[in-house]
Amino acid sequence: MVNNNKRAGVIGATGYTGQEMVALLARHPALDLVFASSEAEAGKPVRGTRLQYLRLESAPVADVDVVFVCLPTGASAEVSLRARSAGPLVVDLSADLREGQGGAVYALPELWREDVRGAQLIANPGCYPTGILVSLAPALASGLVDPSRPIVIDAASGVTGAGRSAKRDLLFGEVSEDFKAYGVGNRHRHVPEIRAGLARSATGMNGKSGVAPQFIFTPHLLPVRRGILETIYLPLKSALAVSDAVALWSEFYAGEACVDIGEALPGLKDVVGRNVVSLGFADVADVESPTLLVVAALDNLMKGAAGQAVQNANIALGLDELAGLPL
Amino acid sequence: MVNNNKRAGVIGATGYTGQEMVALLARHPALDLVFASSEAEAGKPVRGTRLQYLRLESAPVADVDVVFVCLPTGASAEVSLRARSAGPLVVDLSADLREGQGGAVYALPELWREDVRGAQLIANPGCYPTGILVSLAPALASGLVDPSRPIVIDAASGVTGAGRSAKRDLLFGEVSEDFKAYGVGNRHRHVPEIRAGLARSATGMNGKSGVAPQFIFTPHLLPVRRGILETIYLPLKSALAVSDAVALWSEFYAGEACVDIGEALPGLKDVVGRNVVSLGFADVADVESPTLLVVAALDNLMKGAAGQAVQNANIALGLDELAGLPL
Amino acid sequence: MVNNNKRAGVIGATGYTGQEMVALLARHPALDLVFASSEAEAGKPVRGTRLQYLRLESAPVADVDVVFVCLPTGASAEVSLRARSAGPLVVDLSADLREGQGGAVYALPELWREDVRGAQLIANPGCYPTGILVSLAPALASGLVDPSRPIVIDAASGVTGAGRSAKRDLLFGEVSEDFKAYGVGNRHRHVPEIRAGLARSATGMNGKSGVAPQFIFTPHLLPVRRGILETIYLPLKSALAVSDAVALWSEFYAGEACVDIGEALPGLKDVVGRNVVSLGFADVADVESPTLLVVAALDNLMKGAAGQAVQNANIALGLDELAGLPL
Amino acid sequence: MVNNNKRAGVIGATGYTGQEMVALLARHPALDLVFASSEAEAGKPVRGTRLQYLRLESAPVADVDVVFVCLPTGASAEVSLRARSAGPLVVDLSADLREGQGGAVYALPELWREDVRGAQLIANPGCYPTGILVSLAPALASGLVDPSRPIVIDAASGVTGAGRSAKRDLLFGEVSEDFKAYGVGNRHRHVPEIRAGLARSATGMNGKSGVAPQFIFTPHLLPVRRGILETIYLPLKSALAVSDAVALWSEFYAGEACVDIGEALPGLKDVVGRNVVSLGFADVADVESPTLLVVAALDNLMKGAAGQAVQNANIALGLDELAGLPL
Repeated sequence: MVNNNKRAGVIGATGYTGQEMVALLARHPALDLVFASSEAEAGKPVRGTRLQYLRLESAPVADVDVVFVCLPTGASAEVSLRARSAGPLVVDLSADLREGQGGAVYALPELWREDVRGAQLIANPGCYPTGILVSLAPALASGLVDPSRPIVIDAASGVTGAGRSAKRDLLFGEVSEDFKAYGVGNRHRHVPEIRAGLARSATGMNGKSGVAPQFIFTPHLLPVRRGILETIYLPLKSALAVSDAVALWSEFYAGEACVDIGEALPGLKDVVGRNVVSLGFADVADVESPTLLVVAALDNLMKGAAGQAVQNANIALGLDELAGLPL
Repeated sequence: MVNNNKRAGVIGATGYTGQEMVALLARHPALDLVFASSEAEAGKPVRGTRLQYLRLESAPVADVDVVFVCLPTGASAEVSLRARSAGPLVVDLSADLREGQGGAVYALPELWREDVRGAQLIANPGCYPTGILVSLAPALASGLVDPSRPIVIDAASGVTGAGRSAKRDLLFGEVSEDFKAYGVGNRHRHVPEIRAGLARSATGMNGKSGVAPQFIFTPHLLPVRRGILETIYLPLKSALAVSDAVALWSEFYAGEACVDIGEALPGLKDVVGRNVVSLGFADVADVESPTLLVVAALDNLMKGAAGQAVQNANIALGLDELAGLPL
Repeated sequence: MVNNNKRAGVIGATGYTGQEMVALLARHPALDLVFASSEAEAGKPVRGTRLQYLRLESAPVADVDVVFVCLPTGASAEVSLRARSAGPLVVDLSADLREGQGGAVYALPELWREDVRGAQLIANPGCYPTGILVSLAPALASGLVDPSRPIVIDAASGVTGAGRSAKRDLLFGEVSEDFKAYGVGNRHRHVPEIRAGLARSATGMNGKSGVAPQFIFTPHLLPVRRGILETIYLPLKSALAVSDAVALWSEFYAGEACVDIGEALPGLKDVVGRNVVSLGFADVADVESPTLLVVAALDNLMKGAAGQAVQNANIALGLDELAGLPL
Repeated sequence: MVNNNKRAGVIGATGYTGQEMVALLARHPALDLVFASSEAEAGKPVRGTRLQYLRLESAPVADVDVVFVCLPTGASAEVSLRARSAGPLVVDLSADLREGQGGAVYALPELWREDVRGAQLIANPGCYPTGILVSLAPALASGLVDPSRPIVIDAASGVTGAGRSAKRDLLFGEVSEDFKAYGVGNRHRHVPEIRAGLARSATGMNGKSGVAPQFIFTPHLLPVRRGILETIYLPLKSALAVSDAVALWSEFYAGEACVDIGEALPGLKDVVGRNVVSLGFADVADVESPTLLVVAALDNLMKGAAGQAVQNANIALGLDELAGLPL
C-alpha cells in the first residue's frame, strides 16, 4: 500500500510546545513524523513513537516536507531560516519571525487564511495574541469600538506558556497557591504583535488605513498547566445586546471550525486539548459608558501553539485544514 | 494571677471563615475563646483548643464579651440580632447587615475607624470590597479619577471565598486546572456594597455629595485555597507617575499597619496568612487615555474576613487594634 | 456510503466516567454514540457531539448494540439488568455486578480475554483492582511469591476516582494541599474484588486450587484529577533481578498493547489519557527478606474505567480490540 | 527596658527552610533575629523583619548566640564548622553532620533530649527520618516487632522538601497532576540516617546491642507545597489492638507536646504549620501475619526542619523548649 503522507520533523521536541507537536503529529492522518530533535535527550526514545530524539545536526531536515521549529524565542530564527534553505516548509513557533523577518508569513487562518496558502516560511502566532485578535477582529471590522477609551485586556495563562526551562519562578513551590501579574503596563513582549494584528484587523476589514485601537494588556500567571483566559472590556460607541454580539461574531466566523461562539462564558476546561478559541459575551449593568465583556479561552499549547501550527501546515501543504486536530 | 481577658465566642465555627476565627482567637493575647458552635460537629473537639463544638442553643452567648457570627449570608442576620440582644458585641461576617440592618456599623477601619469605636453590632466588610475600597479611596479623595470612563476591576479569588458547602462546582475535580469568570457584568452580590463604599469614599473625603464613580467588576474563580488579587484599571484625568502614586497612597494610609504599599505588584503569596491589603502600582505605556494600574492582594480569610473581624472587635472593645493579628 | 458502525449509548453520562465514555465514543471509528442519558442535564447539549442529554426513560436502549452504564455503585445493577433485557450488550462500570450477579462476566482482557468474547453482560473491573491484578498475575502464575508475608499494596488515586457527587471531603478547599489514607486495613470496598482476582490468578495459572495470597491494601487520596499509582511490595521466595522481572512480566504480557513494561518506574504523567497499565520494577537493597518493588500506574478513567469498557465492548462485539483507544 | 533575649542568625535564608527559619525567629519571644544571609538576595529586605539580607562574609556570626545553617547538603558542613569556631551554638539543618561529623549531636528531642542540653553543634534530623523514628521507637522499645519481615515505610513528601533550586523536575508544569516514586529500594540518602536511628532506638530502649530492624523505604513526590505522610506497615510478633497501640505510644510520649497520638489517621492538613508529628493507627483485617498500620504526618518545613531546629536551640540555650513554636 502506497503511503502518500507528507513527512514532518520537529526541532526542539522536548519543550512543552515540542511535546505537543510530537503528540499531534503521532496521530496525524496525513503527516508522518520522521524526526524529533533534542540536544538534551538525544538517543532517548520519543514517547508515543518508534523514534529516538536526534541532535539537530543529525536531523534529516532536507528530507521532509515540513519542519516545526519549537525553540525558544531568540534561538529560533537562525535555525528556521537554515531549515527553510534546505527545502521544506518551515513553521516557526517562536516570536522571532512574527514581524515578517526572512519573508515569513504571519499565519492566523481565521483572519488571514489566504496568506497561508502556499507559504513556505510561517510565523505561528503567539498564544495571547491569537485569542485577542480572534476576539477583537469582528468588533474592529464593524466599527463599533469607541476609540476614546482603551480596550482593557486582562489575561491569565497556565505555566506551560512560559516554557520548560528550569527557572525558580516556575517551580511548583512558587507557583502553587499563587497568582500574580507580570509584564504589565503594555511591556509584555507580545504587545507589538497584538498592536500590529489589531492595526491590520482595522485596515483589512474596513478599507481605512489601519490604526490599532488603544489597549491595555495585563497578563497573569495561573497555577494551572495549560490554558489561557482573556477577559476583555470592549468600549463601544453604543450599547450592544449580547444576542446581537453573538450574531455579529457568529456571522464573522461563519464556517470556522476552530472558533466557538456562545452566550455562556468559557473557562479553561472548555478548551484544554482542543484547537479552538472559545468566545463568550456579557453586557454590563449600571455603567454609563457602553462596554461589552468578551471572554476568550484557548489552550496555549493547542490553538495557541502546536495545534495552530498543524492547522497552518495543513493549509500550506494543501491538506484538509483540520486534519489531525482535536476539536 | 488574674485574667483580665475578654471572652469571645464563634457561631458557625466549621466553615472556612469560622475555622480561621477559631485559629485567630486561640492565640489572641487579650481574647479568650470560650465557645465555638457547629450544628454538624457538635460534641467533637475543636482543633487547637480544649473546647468541643456546641450546638448554638447551648452556646453561652450572654456570657461573653464578643460573638463572631460566621454563618452563610441569608442565615446570619437573625442569629446576629438575637445574639446582640443577649448583650455582647456582635461581629457579623456575612453580607446580611452591610446596609446597616439592625443598626449595624459597616466597619472598615482604615477608612472609617471612628464608626467602629464603641460599636455594638458590626457588619464586617466583604472580601472583594475590602480590597477595592482600600485601593480606591485615596484616588477618590484626591479627585484624580476621570469620571467619563469606568474603573475596571478584574478580580480573582481562591475557593475558600465561596464557602465550605458541598457544591459540585467547587469540587477539586472541577476547580483544579480551571479558571473562569462568574457573576460578571456587575451582577455579583458584592456590587451594591462596592458601590456604597465608593460613594461614601467620594463623599467623606472631598465634601461633595457622594456619587460612586462608574465601575465594572468581574470576579474569577482561581484554583487556589485562599487569596484575592484585584487588578484595577483606574482612569485618570491626567497621567500620574508610579512614584507619585506610591507617595499619595502612602500619605493617605500613613500609620496604617494593615496596608502595605510599594511599587512592586503583590501576588497572593505576599499576603496569605497576613491581615493586610497589599497595594502595588504600574503605569501603562502607549495608551492615550491616562490610566493607572493598581493591584491589590489580600487573604480572603484574613483581612477579607476573620482577621478584619478581630481588628474590628479589638477597636470596639478598646483593645490594641492589632492584638492577635499576623502582619 | 453505508455506515456499518455499531450503535452505542451511555447511561449516566455526566459523571467523570460518563464524560470520558462520551469522549471516547465520539471519536471511536466503529461505534457511533447515539444517546447519552443524564437526569440532571436532560435537554442540554453533549459536548463534542450533536446530541442532547436524554432522560433514561427516553433513551432508545433497545435500539443500540451496546450500552455503557456509568451509574454509581448501588444504583447501577438494576438499570444494567433492565437494559440487558432490552437486547443490547451491556457494560456495567460500577462494582454492582463484579461478583457475577445476573450472569455478568468479569472482564479484564489481559488476564481472561476468552470470557469476554461473546459476552452479553460485562462487569468492568474497578480501577484499583485492574492495576493490582495486572501487576501480580505473572508473579502468582510463576510461583515466586513467598506466602508467609503479606503483599503490601500502597496505592494513591486522583479525585475523579471518587465520583462527581457533591461531597465536602472532595471540595477543592479540602483536597488541595492535602494527602491522606482512607478505607485502610483491607476495609476498602475493592478488597473482595482484589481477593477474588488474586485467587483466580493463582488458580488459573498454575492449576492448583486458587487461594489468594495474603495482602494489605491501603488507598490514599491524591490532590490530582486523574491517575492511580500503586506501589507494591512483593515478598519473594528468593531474590529476583530487575532484568529478570522485566523479562518474566514481558513474556507473560507478550503481544498485549495495553500493558507497558520497563525498568523505569512510571508516574501518573506517563499514563494519563492512555488505555494502559504501566509497570516498573526495582529491587531493594539491604533487606534480608527478598522483596521486589512493583510500581503500577494507570489512568483511573481510562484503563481503570471508560477505556477498558471500550476495550471490552470491542472484544464482545467482534471489533478490533484497540479501536478508538488512545495508547 | 532590658532585652534579655538571645541573638540569632540564619545562614542560607532564602531557601524554603531558610524562609521558614526567618518566619519562626521573627515571632520568637526569646530569640531576636539579627541577621539573615543570602548570596543571591544580598541587600534586599527580609520579609517580615527590618533586616536586609547580608552576604555570608558580612554576617556577624561571632556576635550571636545561635546560628541556623540552612544550606544545601554538601555545602553546609564547612560553613557550620567555621561558624561554630566563631563562638555561637550552631544548628545545621542539612544532612552533612548527621553522622556526628565535627562532634555534632544528632538532636531529636523526643527520643534523645539529654544529648541536646548544652550541645554546641547540632545536627538537625532529616524530615523523613523524624517521622519514621518517632513512629517506630515505641515499637522497638517494647520488643513487639517481628524481625523476620521488613517494616515497609511508604512515604510521600511535598515539593519544598526537595529545596528551592531551579530544577526541571520540580517545575509546576512537571509536578502538577503527577505522582511518582523516587530514590526507591533503600537508595534514598536518608536511609543511613533512618537505619542508625532505628538501631539506636532498639539499643537505647531495651539495653540490647542496637540492631536496626530490616525495613524498606519508598519516598514519593506529591503535588503539594509542604507536608509528609508516612504509611508504615509494622510486622508484629502478635496482633495488637488499635486501642492498645494508642495506649503504648501515648505512654511512651507522655508529656511530649510535639507528638499527637490518636486512633484517627492524620493527613497533611492536620499538621502543616505545626511543630508536631501526628500519629494514627489501624489494624488490618484478613491477613495472617499480624501487622499494625502506623500513619505519621508532619510538616517537612516545621517539625521536619525549621521548627525542630528552634526546638533544639531552645533546649541547648536553656530556654522554654516550646518557645516560638506553633503547635
